[in-house]
Amino acid sequence: MSGLTNRRIVLAARPEGRPTPENFRAEDTAAPEPGEGELLLKVLYLSLDPYMRGRMSAAKSYAAPLGLGEVMLGGTVAQVVRSRHPDYAEGDHVLSFSGWQSYAVSNGEGLRKLDPSAAPLTTALGVLGMPGFTAYSGLFTIGRPQPGETVVVAAASGPVGATVGQLARIKGARAVGIAGGPDKCAYVRDELGFDAVVDHRAPDFAERLKEACPKGVDVYFENVGGAVWDAVFPLFNDFARIPVCGLIAQYNSTGEFPGPDRLPGVMRDVLSKSLTLRGFIQHEFVRQFPDFHREMSAWIREGRVRYREDIVDGLDRAPEALIGLLDGRNFGKLIVKVGESA
Amino acid sequence: MSGLTNRRIVLAARPEGRPTPENFRAEDTAAPEPGEGELLLKVLYLSLDPYMRGRMSAAKSYAAPLGLGEVMLGGTVAQVVRSRHPDYAEGDHVLSFSGWQSYAVSNGEGLRKLDPSAAPLTTALGVLGMPGFTAYSGLFTIGRPQPGETVVVAAASGPVGATVGQLARIKGARAVGIAGGPDKCAYVRDELGFDAVVDHRAPDFAERLKEACPKGVDVYFENVGGAVWDAVFPLFNDFARIPVCGLIAQYNSTGEFPGPDRLPGVMRDVLSKSLTLRGFIQHEFVRQFPDFHREMSAWIREGRVRYREDIVDGLDRAPEALIGLLDGRNFGKLIVKVGESA
Repeated sequence: MSGLTNRRIVLAARPEGRPTPENFRAEDTAAPEPGEGELLLKVLYLSLDPYMRGRMSAAKSYAAPLGLGEVMLGGTVAQVVRSRHPDYAEGDHVLSFSGWQSYAVSNGEGLRKLDPSAAPLTTALGVLGMPGFTAYSGLFTIGRPQPGETVVVAAASGPVGATVGQLARIKGARAVGIAGGPDKCAYVRDELGFDAVVDHRAPDFAERLKEACPKGVDVYFENVGGAVWDAVFPLFNDFARIPVCGLIAQYNSTGEFPGPDRLPGVMRDVLSKSLTLRGFIQHEFVRQFPDFHREMSAWIREGRVRYREDIVDGLDRAPEALIGLLDGRNFGKLIVKVGESA
Repeated sequence: MSGLTNRRIVLAARPEGRPTPENFRAEDTAAPEPGEGELLLKVLYLSLDPYMRGRMSAAKSYAAPLGLGEVMLGGTVAQVVRSRHPDYAEGDHVLSFSGWQSYAVSNGEGLRKLDPSAAPLTTALGVLGMPGFTAYSGLFTIGRPQPGETVVVAAASGPVGATVGQLARIKGARAVGIAGGPDKCAYVRDELGFDAVVDHRAPDFAERLKEACPKGVDVYFENVGGAVWDAVFPLFNDFARIPVCGLIAQYNSTGEFPGPDRLPGVMRDVLSKSLTLRGFIQHEFVRQFPDFHREMSAWIREGRVRYREDIVDGLDRAPEALIGLLDGRNFGKLIVKVGESA
């Protein structure tokens, strides 16, 4: 064995509704030894993302559910600490999918080398990684904002929403963000440069959103669902496009939803306004990734795309951090610092 | 004046739910006289279509509502009986939008000349007209069926559904139709050549539909809504496309729909299966019309697309015929014969 101790967090029990700390269990095991053609990775950073809630349930989402006792999954930035693979040397930094643990063995499949001098390593989990690519591919491929159109996105201080709004502005559209609380709203408006921002905690939220969209809504990038959907829905213009990449507001719900049934009204407007509703997972557009990485890196260098990270120190704090994420308590891309780079 | 009597049917009262004969009123007036640059049309055939129900309500649909006392609107085949327009001669046949009346004046705008020797005049209201073009444009532009895929359509004996299934087969897809009652089902299977047909009146309809789609559903051409949607919804494959062109099952409903709320479940599957829901009105694709007309005419000549018409004699029977249409009582494209060709 490698002589190293692997701290890992497994799925202890499936959540009923909102996850609790009891759904997770920390374990210490011996870190595995890499075989021929394999390498041992030390995890430096773990990404926490809303999709993880779905994988904790038994129901099929866009991927198979996680088994009880299995290591919680997730994207990671890691460093090669031992290599028996010809393409990797000790000290190399990689993007991997090693999950909630401090060490993992890989055969190299699915790894992507990272250059720490080109961009901060954590950006590979955020603005230059899955959340940024979700924003880019969904907005440009499905939303297709045109100059002068209005683009609305919720969780606008989060890594997907923040990027959606800034990319909409790069395309000449008007970006309207939705966020929770004065600090996040100020950040979205003043730091990210959205044209307008609305606090979804305001009692007159729907009315304020309508005022912020005087020409209606042409693109709604749906990443939350729930009450935000209800407020945006009446504002859609004819031919509005709605990329659907997340529904965090309903991930913790179980069983039937009480009436009235909103589906007939939604279908009526889909028809009468020629709306497009299109679900997607960024992986569908993976061939766009090189273009994304090149363009987004340039926009970051030019200051046209900004990002914010919310870094939590220590793997053991990952469960509470994920629970907070589902409650909207993070501020920026949520990342757990798991270990130190050599 | 022209000396001719114009029989017309106007909207007498807005329906609450299902329309009744009292919502309509027949009137006799003097037919108008065409001015310079105008022509007088004698209506030969009037098309009855589900969208008319929406225009009878006060709520905005994809067009402004009809005013009380206004002539019921509709597509028509007409003959020029007097012309003061350089492009039209007496005796010419045209497609017009003259509505529920026996005579109308036109300035030529929106008219399309018809050649009665090329195809029966009534086909301009059905398979070679708006319903056929709705099927063609929605299926090919939004549904995009691929060889081996499964395409489901309801109202499969009607002018849109019948065409959707036959076009799906031309593209190498498997066509599954839904119709009401044994006569319509036999027609869909035996005359139109669908691969399978399911009677939506069967008590185990959902189970039978599932059996008829052993490889799931890749395209659902939505023209009815209601219980058919509920049966198709669980069968969608990843990346299924759902062109939405009609919701006849809910046109007569008023007020809120009782729970449970189906929207969260639909949004969940839109996300997890990367579904596309896209409402459309055929007019959006009007530039495809010449291609449609050429291709469809050829397919009809070759016997690859068949159609059926349900012709009602006399304008005064139009109200009861439209009510029957909304109840699913017509069998084929519903047309009212209003007058005789000269």
